[in-house]
Amino acid sequence: MALIAAAEPVPAAAVFTRNRMAAPPVSLSRRNVASGLARAVIVNAGNANACTGPRGEADAEAMAGAVAEALGCDPGDVLVASTGVIGVPMPMDAVLGGVREAVAAADRAGGGMAAEAIMTTDTFVKETAVRVECEGRGFTVGGMAKGSGMIRPDMATMLAFVTTDAPLTPRACDAVLRAAVAKTFNRITVDSDTSTNDMCVLLASGAEGGEPVEEGTACFAGVLAALTEVCERLAIMVARDGEGATKLITVDVRGAATDEDAAAAAFAIADSPLVKTAIFGADANWGRVAMAVGKSEAAVDPAALDVRFAGILTCRAGVAQAFDEEEAAAALARPEVSIEVDLHLGEGRARVWTCDLTYDYVRINGDYRT
Amino acid sequence: MALIAAAEPVPAAAVFTRNRMAAPPVSLSRRNVASGLARAVIVNAGNANACTGPRGEADAEAMAGAVAEALGCDPGDVLVASTGVIGVPMPMDAVLGGVREAVAAADRAGGGMAAEAIMTTDTFVKETAVRVECEGRGFTVGGMAKGSGMIRPDMATMLAFVTTDAPLTPRACDAVLRAAVAKTFNRITVDSDTSTNDMCVLLASGAEGGEPVEEGTACFAGVLAALTEVCERLAIMVARDGEGATKLITVDVRGAATDEDAAAAAFAIADSPLVKTAIFGADANWGRVAMAVGKSEAAVDPAALDVRFAGILTCRAGVAQAFDEEEAAAALARPEVSIEVDLHLGEGRARVWTCDLTYDYVRINGDYRT
Repeated sequence: MALIAAAEPVPAAAVFTRNRMAAPPVSLSRRNVASGLARAVIVNAGNANACTGPRGEADAEAMAGAVAEALGCDPGDVLVASTGVIGVPMPMDAVLGGVREAVAAADRAGGGMAAEAIMTTDTFVKETAVRVECEGRGFTVGGMAKGSGMIRPDMATMLAFVTTDAPLTPRACDAVLRAAVAKTFNRITVDSDTSTNDMCVLLASGAEGGEPVEEGTACFAGVLAALTEVCERLAIMVARDGEGATKLITVDVRGAATDEDAAAAAFAIADSPLVKTAIFGADANWGRVAMAVGKSEAAVDPAALDVRFAGILTCRAGVAQAFDEEEAAAALARPEVSIEVDLHLGEGRARVWTCDLTYDYVRINGDYRT
Repeated sequence: MALIAAAEPVPAAAVFTRNRMAAPPVSLSRRNVASGLARAVIVNAGNANACTGPRGEADAEAMAGAVAEALGCDPGDVLVASTGVIGVPMPMDAVLGGVREAVAAADRAGGGMAAEAIMTTDTFVKETAVRVECEGRGFTVGGMAKGSGMIRPDMATMLAFVTTDAPLTPRACDAVLRAAVAKTFNRITVDSDTSTNDMCVLLASGAEGGEPVEEGTACFAGVLAALTEVCERLAIMVARDGEGATKLITVDVRGAATDEDAAAAAFAIADSPLVKTAIFGADANWGRVAMAVGKSEAAVDPAALDVRFAGILTCRAGVAQAFDEEEAAAALARPEVSIEVDLHLGEGRARVWTCDLTYDYVRINGDYRT
């Protein structure tokens, strides 16, 4: 378990999964963050507290209540995040004991331990921080995330917690988080599956002091840039650490009729099991990219499509180009592979990160629960 | 290569992939079937003739031309179907030699050889026939299909060819094919990927003779039932033979607000890599079914969801139910697994067939092209 706490209720914002089977901790946190303030987030890994009905709701409330009691704050100022198996009741004795331990162990230097505590099938700790200067002031934005499977966030990723010492107003806090998440956590996919428990929370302690930071100011822009950088780094870590992954894949679509079309085409490529297995096998089977673009909802002119696969122009104006197979195999053997598509229809563009589909993805998910 | 030919141009209908990168043989066949008549279909496996530009169009025309010359018919009465690797020019010397051999070998008893000739990564031949009696008449509907990867047909499956001796009018031919495909080939998925070359063709020779069969008659209903049965059997064979598959999975969603919602939820389950790997691993991880329903576009009341996993009630009214893990493991070890979901919102229902996601899917597709 992990606890992220401020010294008092501070401006907070959060985005949550759009999965209609959202878990009780998601409903509770959505309700509690609506005030624009929060004091703490309590996180458990191993049990998602999803499909648990009224008992699951009571358990999430009890977790918030225990944190509130230990910190001496209102339970409405506590957010709850859970991740793990769906459909298993929470072992509340252990959980409440863990809450008390986490509160007792709370420490300014404990970020690394917390980032480790929230891992499930993750293979490395995901944390980062960025410093930003604006109008003679300086702020820090730091964050941690967990997640490697059931990753196709829609409003947030599995679990991500970001903090800043910038004195954001609650409204600025919400605006900056939504803007940063849209092009970072909402642009990754491991397996096209959207968790019931996705959540990304921003707490703005304001510890750096000074005038409140409002939307439209230079400092807002500075914090947005820093937060976007932090979220992008964490999102890329999640994609790179996708279950069983051996390669990080960056998909860039440009020249689309709209940005939405570009995102639709990019996700169709990034979610295609055939594209992902080809990259695992270091096979320059770029035709599968053309297939994926064609099956997406994006407007496409088949006679205009350009595809670069691992940096090699393999398709120009819809027609296959001769290329050096050895050069392609070498490029595909690297741990980072790019796919670039130009639709030559407009100015729309999108970038999506994903990973390859491997034997280990099947192994991990063929035997996760038991 | 395979040739399916009638003694003269006969009523014909076809449905094609909605993939926007549709291959030259698809465009040619769509154009040639528009008359409602066709004499023959020439099929090659191994090369999709997709992303091949003007040369690919000329090659498809040349294939139709060679068949027309050998049969002594109009090239506009020949359909062309190709399947295989995308983005490689057709080896036309070999192809045209194959066309001549196929025409020379044409035989009424050659259905089995043709069904074998169109296979790529298929592990077994897919053919079937059904006899129907109506108003004192009797007709036969027979069919063959190929396909095991890049399977998420949208208007048709990879390649399927169906014939009948019923004297359907061209209009009845089109109507009966579209109705049969909607709930059969358009209800299977192996990997959510839609081929650039999908096609399902019906040739109605009328060899059985008698009055033409029009829509709205008892014989039309009889032929529709027989054709639906043939298409369903072939579609299930395609799902069962999904690349690397060890299990056939049948997903039934009922109680949805609409049939469209039911289909959306059923496909979200059937396409979920996490559901498919859990079934491969014989792990009763039904929570992933709830996740998939929740991420779909279907209207869902989380407090009303029932899930039966391999015949076992695992979730009732949105809440996990205790079940016997040994019984579940035994049920999941069988070669056919059912997933049943009741949304308790309306009368909408849909059935979708798919297969599990296995090590062999990754192996086959990590090294298909080279």
